[in-house]
Amino acid sequence: MKSNMALDPNLSDPTLRRAAVEAACGRRPFDLLIENARILDMVTGRQRKADIGIVGALIASVHAPDEKAEASRRIDAAGAMVVPGLIDTHMHVESSMITPATYSDRVLPKGVTTALWDPHELANVAGLAGVDYALEAARAATLRFLTLAPTCVPSAPGYELSGGDFDADVIADLMARDDIHGAAELMTMQPLLAGEDRVTGIVNAGLAAGKRVCGHGRGLVGRELSAYVAAGVETDHELTSADDLIARLEAGMTVELRGSHEHLLPEFAAAILALGLMPQTLTLCTDDVFADDLLNKGALDQLMRTLIREGLPPFWVYQAATLNGASRIGRPDLGLIAPGKRADIVILSDIEDVRASMVVMNGALVASEGQICTPSAVTERPAALSASVRTRDFVPDDFEIASNGSSARITTLSKPRFPEWGEREVTIENGHLQLPDDMIRMAVVNRHGQNTPVRVAFMENWGNWRGSFASTVSHDSHNLTLFGRDPLDMAVAANALKAMDGGLVAVRDGAVIASVALPVAGLLSDQDLDAVAADFAAVRAATDSLVDWQPPYLVFKALFGASLVCNKGPRLTDVGLVEVFDGIKLESSVLEGKAAR
Amino acid sequence: MKSNMALDPNLSDPTLRRAAVEAACGRRPFDLLIENARILDMVTGRQRKADIGIVGALIASVHAPDEKAEASRRIDAAGAMVVPGLIDTHMHVESSMITPATYSDRVLPKGVTTALWDPHELANVAGLAGVDYALEAARAATLRFLTLAPTCVPSAPGYELSGGDFDADVIADLMARDDIHGAAELMTMQPLLAGEDRVTGIVNAGLAAGKRVCGHGRGLVGRELSAYVAAGVETDHELTSADDLIARLEAGMTVELRGSHEHLLPEFAAAILALGLMPQTLTLCTDDVFADDLLNKGALDQLMRTLIREGLPPFWVYQAATLNGASRIGRPDLGLIAPGKRADIVILSDIEDVRASMVVMNGALVASEGQICTPSAVTERPAALSASVRTRDFVPDDFEIASNGSSARITTLSKPRFPEWGEREVTIENGHLQLPDDMIRMAVVNRHGQNTPVRVAFMENWGNWRGSFASTVSHDSHNLTLFGRDPLDMAVAANALKAMDGGLVAVRDGAVIASVALPVAGLLSDQDLDAVAADFAAVRAATDSLVDWQPPYLVFKALFGASLVCNKGPRLTDVGLVEVFDGIKLESSVLEGKAAR
Repeated sequence: MKSNMALDPNLSDPTLRRAAVEAACGRRPFDLLIENARILDMVTGRQRKADIGIVGALIASVHAPDEKAEASRRIDAAGAMVVPGLIDTHMHVESSMITPATYSDRVLPKGVTTALWDPHELANVAGLAGVDYALEAARAATLRFLTLAPTCVPSAPGYELSGGDFDADVIADLMARDDIHGAAELMTMQPLLAGEDRVTGIVNAGLAAGKRVCGHGRGLVGRELSAYVAAGVETDHELTSADDLIARLEAGMTVELRGSHEHLLPEFAAAILALGLMPQTLTLCTDDVFADDLLNKGALDQLMRTLIREGLPPFWVYQAATLNGASRIGRPDLGLIAPGKRADIVILSDIEDVRASMVVMNGALVASEGQICTPSAVTERPAALSASVRTRDFVPDDFEIASNGSSARITTLSKPRFPEWGEREVTIENGHLQLPDDMIRMAVVNRHGQNTPVRVAFMENWGNWRGSFASTVSHDSHNLTLFGRDPLDMAVAANALKAMDGGLVAVRDGAVIASVALPVAGLLSDQDLDAVAADFAAVRAATDSLVDWQPPYLVFKALFGASLVCNKGPRLTDVGLVEVFDGIKLESSVLEGKAAR
Repeated sequence: MKSNMALDPNLSDPTLRRAAVEAACGRRPFDLLIENARILDMVTGRQRKADIGIVGALIASVHAPDEKAEASRRIDAAGAMVVPGLIDTHMHVESSMITPATYSDRVLPKGVTTALWDPHELANVAGLAGVDYALEAARAATLRFLTLAPTCVPSAPGYELSGGDFDADVIADLMARDDIHGAAELMTMQPLLAGEDRVTGIVNAGLAAGKRVCGHGRGLVGRELSAYVAAGVETDHELTSADDLIARLEAGMTVELRGSHEHLLPEFAAAILALGLMPQTLTLCTDDVFADDLLNKGALDQLMRTLIREGLPPFWVYQAATLNGASRIGRPDLGLIAPGKRADIVILSDIEDVRASMVVMNGALVASEGQICTPSAVTERPAALSASVRTRDFVPDDFEIASNGSSARITTLSKPRFPEWGEREVTIENGHLQLPDDMIRMAVVNRHGQNTPVRVAFMENWGNWRGSFASTVSHDSHNLTLFGRDPLDMAVAANALKAMDGGLVAVRDGAVIASVALPVAGLLSDQDLDAVAADFAAVRAATDSLVDWQPPYLVFKALFGASLVCNKGPRLTDVGLVEVFDGIKLESSVLEGKAAR
């Protein structure tokens, strides 16, 4: 695969290499010498005392402590363990609802120096303007964001409408860019398996460019999983069981083991322990981290400490986060503390708890004791990412389902997270379907200027609700999505989000009780992490007061994926009730006679 | 690094990918189905029953046995273990003294599908014509030869004269070729560490091309080893101890653990066992295999079975020879039996003894039960590789060292393999230094048309000789090199080699007692392996009758490396007595007064 190092100082510069040789041989001082380090070697698993001599962005020498070594600047590691910069192999900045600059400057001090960013959410709201913003922000950020081209804009063409439309030609153009590092998670599984031209062309654009095609193969097993990989998809993070993990390793995929589904980690850790080795194709990723979790728990570091607490040897976990990641993303310059490699080095204060005291990146100290030393440059928010809630105003009636007669048999959505079709007989009053006591309404409204009707469905097994929650963050088309029982609450929520230019809102008794404003594309805030996390925590708490969750499936997070139509199972989108795998599209939930799906 | 797949069917072909998806999904038959296989999984280390569906050169599906799977052709593995095609990460075809076509067709049946070939010997004899021949032969061969650009032509510029002269511009031109996969072993260590322009430019040409720069870092430790790697060299196979192995792994190098130094393998195996893991940067190579060893023992398979006999788990050894090799040479299409990978598959009859029964390459059965099914095309021998012993005829006096007076103090070469300088007082008779009873003569004659004087040195600790051995194979400049006591025997040997257009010859009592003709560049025979091996074995046996070897250092093989001047220590070349690391060049071994080196 092609190695893309567009954002980094060029390590092949002859002057740099010559200076590194000179310094290693003692004929000139190192620019920086990290002394009294204890290297956890990512190849051998052993620990050893070493000094690390750096010239420019390059590690020039890793040698036994040598008092004769001269250096312009010295860092005393004081016997602390040092490891290579950590690599997050799949993530969406947008999930943390902060800007890339803010994300960078809060996460780098944790030791994460590289993150493969799929700006899929920005692209689904703002199209190419979203990708351009991501690339500009990546250039301006201190953390090394390796930006991928979102492949699923929208994630289920024909089954939803988003703010962008990336066909194979668009992807081919993006692939030609030096600062695009591959094709991002390919969620349109079913069309790919069916040989549908659009998505097949998208994968082929990635292959033709010699860049990685990343995956999202949720629920695929056996020959379907083989077909998905044979099409050209290299990676997956959509694991829901240890069996999934093993199947993907056996399919030769690079696994991006993710931290965002914490309840699965004990099972994953047990499966890896049972293998008796850390597979070299296993890497680590965060995928999605909410702002309050990022503030209070962490990013990739939180996943790593959880895996260590679950019993994995720390060496295995660090190896997955460094050497394995570097090898699998095609960056041989990363992932090792060794001569000739890029000087991305983390000095740890606690190896098992994954706490960094100092972070060196490209040979410069970029973070110390939890604080960023070289803040990211700030990127202007482009007009295309502003005022992104392009809808009319709402009234309660918008959230009713109209029908004639006294009763109707309707299609319902049953179960959160792994939805199934349901059916229910409901009464009709005043020309509206009456919501049964045990059910809630879900509504989806296109916010990208399509002016499609408000789509409403009734859902079972979503608990007992006492208000409404609404969001412009709603995977993956990020249409305005609402949950609740009372149409009045829902109208209040929808109008509040429109007034805020997007965000999250909790409403009870016709009044907003908590909100997060996300004016950048309805996805991100310009505020600092602490402010966003506080607002987000308030909305989370407020929503907790509206509904009784039943983990692991009926959880707050499930609200953001309830319209994620690319996975198996029925869902509500701005097009109606749909099921991509079976090719189903229903504009109304009312079944005509007994003829149904 | 750049992935180079110039010689292989293109796996990114959209038609091929589409067909693979169709077949995996059961909508069309596989081209080939390997049934009842037992896969040794190179990622997890586990074994499992599986069927392998192939379309064209691509693995389309690896799935649990499925009776419904249709296929145009089926192979019943009958429960045998299958592994990916084996990868030899560093070798010289020339060492086996047969053509690339012959090598391919004898080694493929052993399961070796890929070999990184450094045609260093051909280049040192014939310059670019040698490389062109190698590239043409690689295209014509069934085995996948990934040809590297020889970086050390000659291996010690200024200290020897070879038949080519590759400076940085030549290397840059070679690097630009699609069928050149990297820069081959960089043996000019000392000039690189000294920052000498020629070799620094050669390394930089490799870096600039984004291709691998391979190494030969014999004897380097500490900051010198760091400097060598920091200059841009990625790999090494010149390990002489377990400490060397660990130091190179710790330096982040890809280790090409080699089979050609068998006495070191127990030590290496013990060191790897002590690590408790197979390092993912450890790959396997043969480097040099003599014809009789190739016939009687094997190639990479022989190294693998030795490592397994030394106690390494078979999975580790196969992983090193497959996935590790593929990852480190930048070929993600190789090294795994998994969908989306290239269909290079070996069906084993014996996993621990590394015996292949069938070999599939690019989806076609290429070897079965030890026999090649698709022989390599034969390449014409170009004129530039013929009549390569360009010297005058010889007389016994050519192998005397002339001097005045009655005695002289001379510089000697002491010890085979790891030579050191020695000194000795010798008598002079008839204007010639008299060879002490415990010593032998070594002579080197330029055979590339330079008409330089015959260089002669006296050597200690080389045993008791009863005749002469001479060779046009003599690393790395392959000048005519002779060993013996009697100048008459040496003249007979030299003239015999000139008459044969190169090869090896053993002479006793003024008569040739065994020979191998190597008319292709003085390095290779056009004959089949059996004939070459028989001749070679005869020369080896004849030479054994001339000298009493004392393994592991004083061995037959040491004769071919006695002029290998790039390593540390003094050596005799066509320039004289030299030591590259100390910058020494002596035209005569006679010391002037007491002023010496």
